[in-house]
Amino acid sequence: MTERELEQNYRFACRAYPLGDVKIHIPSESLTAPQRTQVEGLELPVTPEPPIRGLEVRLRPPSLEVPESDDQNLWAALARQQGISAGIIDLGVQQILSPELRKANWQICVALRDREIVALGPPFSHWLGLAVDMGTTKIAVYLVDMQSGRTLATKGLMNPQISYGEDVVSRIAAADKSPENAAKLQGLLVDALNAAVVSVCSEIGAHRSDVVEAVMVGNTAIHHLFARLPVHQLGVSPYVPAVRSALDIKARDLGIEIAPGAYVHLLPNIAGYVGADHVAMLLATGVAASEATVLAIDIGTNTEICLNHHGRMTSVSCASGPAFEGAHIKHGMRAAPGAIEHVRLSGSRLEIQTIGGEPPVGICGSGLLDAAAQLRLNEALDRSGRMQPHPLVRNRDGTEEFVLAERPGREAITVSQKDVRQLQLAKAAIRLGIRALVETEGLAEDAIQRVFIAGAFGTFIDVESAITIGMLPPLPLDCFQQVGNAAGTGARLALVSTSRRAQAQQIAARDGYIELACIPDFNRKFAEASFLSGAVPDASR
Amino acid sequence: MTERELEQNYRFACRAYPLGDVKIHIPSESLTAPQRTQVEGLELPVTPEPPIRGLEVRLRPPSLEVPESDDQNLWAALARQQGISAGIIDLGVQQILSPELRKANWQICVALRDREIVALGPPFSHWLGLAVDMGTTKIAVYLVDMQSGRTLATKGLMNPQISYGEDVVSRIAAADKSPENAAKLQGLLVDALNAAVVSVCSEIGAHRSDVVEAVMVGNTAIHHLFARLPVHQLGVSPYVPAVRSALDIKARDLGIEIAPGAYVHLLPNIAGYVGADHVAMLLATGVAASEATVLAIDIGTNTEICLNHHGRMTSVSCASGPAFEGAHIKHGMRAAPGAIEHVRLSGSRLEIQTIGGEPPVGICGSGLLDAAAQLRLNEALDRSGRMQPHPLVRNRDGTEEFVLAERPGREAITVSQKDVRQLQLAKAAIRLGIRALVETEGLAEDAIQRVFIAGAFGTFIDVESAITIGMLPPLPLDCFQQVGNAAGTGARLALVSTSRRAQAQQIAARDGYIELACIPDFNRKFAEASFLSGAVPDASR
Repeated sequence: MTERELEQNYRFACRAYPLGDVKIHIPSESLTAPQRTQVEGLELPVTPEPPIRGLEVRLRPPSLEVPESDDQNLWAALARQQGISAGIIDLGVQQILSPELRKANWQICVALRDREIVALGPPFSHWLGLAVDMGTTKIAVYLVDMQSGRTLATKGLMNPQISYGEDVVSRIAAADKSPENAAKLQGLLVDALNAAVVSVCSEIGAHRSDVVEAVMVGNTAIHHLFARLPVHQLGVSPYVPAVRSALDIKARDLGIEIAPGAYVHLLPNIAGYVGADHVAMLLATGVAASEATVLAIDIGTNTEICLNHHGRMTSVSCASGPAFEGAHIKHGMRAAPGAIEHVRLSGSRLEIQTIGGEPPVGICGSGLLDAAAQLRLNEALDRSGRMQPHPLVRNRDGTEEFVLAERPGREAITVSQKDVRQLQLAKAAIRLGIRALVETEGLAEDAIQRVFIAGAFGTFIDVESAITIGMLPPLPLDCFQQVGNAAGTGARLALVSTSRRAQAQQIAARDGYIELACIPDFNRKFAEASFLSGAVPDASR
Repeated sequence: MTERELEQNYRFACRAYPLGDVKIHIPSESLTAPQRTQVEGLELPVTPEPPIRGLEVRLRPPSLEVPESDDQNLWAALARQQGISAGIIDLGVQQILSPELRKANWQICVALRDREIVALGPPFSHWLGLAVDMGTTKIAVYLVDMQSGRTLATKGLMNPQISYGEDVVSRIAAADKSPENAAKLQGLLVDALNAAVVSVCSEIGAHRSDVVEAVMVGNTAIHHLFARLPVHQLGVSPYVPAVRSALDIKARDLGIEIAPGAYVHLLPNIAGYVGADHVAMLLATGVAASEATVLAIDIGTNTEICLNHHGRMTSVSCASGPAFEGAHIKHGMRAAPGAIEHVRLSGSRLEIQTIGGEPPVGICGSGLLDAAAQLRLNEALDRSGRMQPHPLVRNRDGTEEFVLAERPGREAITVSQKDVRQLQLAKAAIRLGIRALVETEGLAEDAIQRVFIAGAFGTFIDVESAITIGMLPPLPLDCFQQVGNAAGTGARLALVSTSRRAQAQQIAARDGYIELACIPDFNRKFAEASFLSGAVPDASR
């Protein structure tokens, strides 16, 4: 906190003790909800090959002459009417089968997964599936028709684990502190997911027991915390996951309340910091199948990047930090209404655009990136990122800052020298990751033919600005494609298609992983990557 | 309660309300423990083909250069050192794998079941198995070395569900009353089993997490109550089981606390009143494999009988009632110390033998059976079961009774006319079952070449007496073989041998079931079967 702020009677909330009743004002830029969410791409580019088959069946009621048991009666009817040979019935299903058969007058619909009956319902049941992208900050839930693959309802929610830390490193530390903590972290997430399931189901008049399969993706830490897998080894060198393979876990073993025998399928991880969400993104973008030299980037607090060069895939993880989420930025905020998301500067003529067109309350990641690019183009920043004299640059408390918006009666919204440094650290990590990948293949950056940019932040950034500040390599603009929440799309693909599930396994198995900290000459290369060095090519190739 | 007893100040305990502090005397014949148990047959006549393989493995610690995940690291080591291809790791095992690997310095022993790792431990772990015969009254627990098949410790305990009823019919009714009741019945059993596991393990210095597999058998009702399967349909015509097939259930899904990924294997049932314990008995006696015409009988509150004639197996269930357990018999008691177990009568010269040689306190099932046979041989009973004049037959309160033992200052121990009627009902059910089976095959009883008699009661009865009262057919005595707790032996066979498990499946699938109530002319045949009609053949064939 600066002298100036102290003079204005600002105090740290975490160090203030209320001495009596108080009235607390929370400024709008500090509110995290509602955030901008993405519900695009409801239709999937896939022919469903669902792992679940719904089968109608009518049984012969048992008699004293033929006192057949309910399980074998069911299998006999399935053999006669559907040509299905006997398999196994999940215990949870078996525990309700006998009364359900009698209630339904011996005519039911079963959900068959491979050789196992995982659910049963009245004739002509509509079986549903659940796809979930569990982000560190945000969670996207999709309710999908297992037969058609159509998305029927969606819901965005905050990851409630945030009370244990904003980033995965602090959550790993929290979970590692005690088994009780780990259980609490899992419980918070599971409770939120169960509530979301009830909510999306009620939206379409369905019941959670109609949900017979779930696919969940997340980064490795969230994946592990969700499955109650140990995370200690994720937090210390060499940062290995407990599990890399895909997992099929009974939903009940995780506390997820859907159909009695339903499974949760967790897509495979690649490394400690390249998780199942990255695999889902690769699945959705089709990077793995590409013959070209393709780059896929999922930008977030942690940024994962994958290069596919002639079928050889390599991934890297970069600790880009929370600057893009508005954290550690003086007037930073999440992408909520009133956040400055775009900036244009021409000489001293400044234009800003806020989310929802509201009066400005702060600056979000894409706005910060834009601001830095415009400052650089107008030479208010030099190549090293140092602020230069400019009509809108002023000095406050011994530090330079660029005024983005004056606010009557309140402090102006600014981008400070320190903010630019934070941004440089974040973007340097990403650029270094890209360089490391191409150099591993003996290539230069201009060999990249296509770049997919995924994730909420990646959807809204101005690619030109990202090139200008040197976060992305100077490729023709039409090489770049912003694909939104590709992890959620990948989860839905894997939900309804067994062959996409197999493909995800292949992706994770094929994908080589390089540890950024291990590349030769790391420090020099990192310093280089922090320069605001980009220039956007004039025309597309 | 008789007038005479009322005069002696006897009152029903269930109708008495204590008005102040009271001192309660429980006569020794009412104490249920310790009962006579059987711990014979510790060595199994089988070459173990265990479903669990213990595999020693040493992993390469991961590094920043090769940051392999713990799961794939383990599979890679198993492939290199044991030639095992990658399978799945139980979630419970996966949840402890990472810390255990590091604690054990990357050298561990895993328990592999088919393609799944169900447990892990330090190098050279001894994996144990659990075989349990869950009787309606008594439970036998065996702790077995999975590699050698040797039984290392055993424990007999009472089935605590007895507080919900002595026979399965009352327990079915209790469980059917509410889901809470069903949960309580299951919980009681599971708690008792968990305590027994801790007890047998501690006996050999092992830990319950060393137990990697369990096989449990019981009659269909106990089987269902244990697995929380619905029992309503067991209690109403046509009395069908929810499940006939063998089940492999995660121990944790049942609340059984053994190794994290361990399974409980439940042998298959045959019918609503011919359960997995009967299958286990058939497995242990080798009845299924026999070429001869063989009968196997498991006598209890419910008696199951199986006939194998030229490879065609048929079973029947007879409601023989609790008379053999001493219930509904005036001086009846369980087979505990002081119970009269053998009776010899010659004219008016009477000899009795009690369990443990203690002063007589009551009469147990085998004693009652002996007494009736001796009375019949001495014509104190006629063929129809009516008591005849005899020096030791007296009339009390208008009913005839035979005095077995006078007790100074207490009422004499007697066998009453009513007791004989109870015994006749019980033995008639068994004899009718035998007749129904042979007649179904178009045979007469003398076609039977061999009879196995299983169960605690069956072990201690005098076969000659059983023939005399017409409970068993008059075959040469050397046709009969008393095999003890064959269900427990069968459970142990299935525990350590996958081919015996497969055989059990075949037995249950092959075994035809006839409903005794459906046989033609039931009433006449039942009346016939109740006659005390037997005569023991002079010599063996």
